[in-house]
Amino acid sequence: MFASLSPKLRGVLSPVLTPFEVDGSPSVPRFIEHCRTLLNHDVGLAIFGTNSEATSMSVKEKRALLDAVLAAGMPAARMMPGVGACNPDDTAELARHAVAAGCGGVLVLPPFFYKGVSEEGLFRSFAGMIEAVGDARLRVYLYHIPPVTQVGISLPLIERLLKAFPGVIAGVKDSSGDREFGKDGFDVFAGSETALVDTMRHGGAGVISATANVNPGGIAGLLRDWQHDDAAARQAALNQVRAVFGQFPMIAAMKAAMASGLNDPAWNKLRPPLVELDRIQRETLLRQLDALGFQLYRGQAEEVAAH
Amino acid sequence: MFASLSPKLRGVLSPVLTPFEVDGSPSVPRFIEHCRTLLNHDVGLAIFGTNSEATSMSVKEKRALLDAVLAAGMPAARMMPGVGACNPDDTAELARHAVAAGCGGVLVLPPFFYKGVSEEGLFRSFAGMIEAVGDARLRVYLYHIPPVTQVGISLPLIERLLKAFPGVIAGVKDSSGDREFGKDGFDVFAGSETALVDTMRHGGAGVISATANVNPGGIAGLLRDWQHDDAAARQAALNQVRAVFGQFPMIAAMKAAMASGLNDPAWNKLRPPLVELDRIQRETLLRQLDALGFQLYRGQAEEVAAH
Repeated sequence: MFASLSPKLRGVLSPVLTPFEVDGSPSVPRFIEHCRTLLNHDVGLAIFGTNSEATSMSVKEKRALLDAVLAAGMPAARMMPGVGACNPDDTAELARHAVAAGCGGVLVLPPFFYKGVSEEGLFRSFAGMIEAVGDARLRVYLYHIPPVTQVGISLPLIERLLKAFPGVIAGVKDSSGDREFGKDGFDVFAGSETALVDTMRHGGAGVISATANVNPGGIAGLLRDWQHDDAAARQAALNQVRAVFGQFPMIAAMKAAMASGLNDPAWNKLRPPLVELDRIQRETLLRQLDALGFQLYRGQAEEVAAH
Repeated sequence: MFASLSPKLRGVLSPVLTPFEVDGSPSVPRFIEHCRTLLNHDVGLAIFGTNSEATSMSVKEKRALLDAVLAAGMPAARMMPGVGACNPDDTAELARHAVAAGCGGVLVLPPFFYKGVSEEGLFRSFAGMIEAVGDARLRVYLYHIPPVTQVGISLPLIERLLKAFPGVIAGVKDSSGDREFGKDGFDVFAGSETALVDTMRHGGAGVISATANVNPGGIAGLLRDWQHDDAAARQAALNQVRAVFGQFPMIAAMKAAMASGLNDPAWNKLRPPLVELDRIQRETLLRQLDALGFQLYRGQAEEVAAH
């Protein structure tokens, strides 16, 4: 059997927010609708990222969500599920599932419980996962987010992995703001749209941005137009929106915006240890977005009306 | 049906090291033998702790190990399995399994991926776990180990949990060195034997100590004799042994000592992201232990010979 390879992931991806039902289970219909909205705005699906509360879900829950999105007809080639867990079995199971489904790549956190671990230990962790998946279609994006994991992915580690697994190690999501490690054939995605124009100018592959959940059109539009004359002004406008969300716990703030835009309070729900914004925070958020002239996405009805 | 309650956990417990086979799977025979050795020295079994590499194992692997130890006849009442995971399903599944088996308690890490989380979020996490288990026999020991998790368990959080779940919230393992939160009916276990005499003097329930894996007799002996005249000298001797191990990555150093004492090199294996000591580290460790006159445990043969 030939390994069939998707085109490489490019552009804007969003760590897709995971909506929950009142009982705390993932809300499959809302998740599917949100994935469809993002794709309609040309935003790819980095499901199961930090902003998806992925580590707050079991592998079983994540497999079921991935299956549901695929069954709803979303293209696997536009997906980069996060699969990294602290234990190798869970990481390999979800990665295998994603690869078998044809996902464009997988985003892999380092194991994040132990701190101060060695480069050798992290190398073995990624190598073990690649060998456990054992599929030539696997494309690994390394997830460098030291502010959360406290465990970073160093340049020497990347070089060692690239040498050991050429073609498999496909790139990095760099949420550190440090874009030093661009290499030929190795794609760098910035972890925030505040670096969008800068990232593209330095040969980046795109951005994987939390706020693409709530501002998909604006961010995907600038990714398309980053060489236009108005790019700097549009970058500044995106940054203003991001800064408003950044005043609050980010995931809760984005969910509050979803709940408000879609007039669906269920969207406010988060899994512990994260909590929803309180009423004053929500009102402040919405007032500040309004002051920027920022329009919340109001659902499919809006798109139909716009055409 | 009446809830049948075990006597409360007391004394010295060890976060039981998890031996692995060459292929990386948990070594059930070695694990059972090690658990038996610890119990023979009057050391309880805090299996699946930080020093057990518990977060590097899947729930399925941990369930199987617990079942194997129970099937080998070890008393569940002497066990405090670690069950805390970042996601609520995994935590509840392992906790339910432990409670159904009759374990004396469970040790629960807070979810440790997100940093800077609120007291409310952590309260919801523990409360959700307790409600998901839904068994009056559940005894929860809160696991406070901020140097690793970066997420602590504050005194106000403990008070809130005690009020909401009296009888269920049984105590804390405090690996912070901060023993401020002793309360009536709430048991404090120190996270290191270096605080043993001090902990007992302040009304502590005992210690859950990594090095009880390699020095079970010495530590359990002092726990028994902490009010004897020679306690200070014995505490100092324990501290010297601990300090030797503490110069190295602790888990790797303890496994090296097990491998040497039992003449079983397989004990050197760790799961990524942790790695074994190198040859020079191993030799240094063994030389320093020897200089202290410290005897490595040499297996069942030793015990028979001693009787």
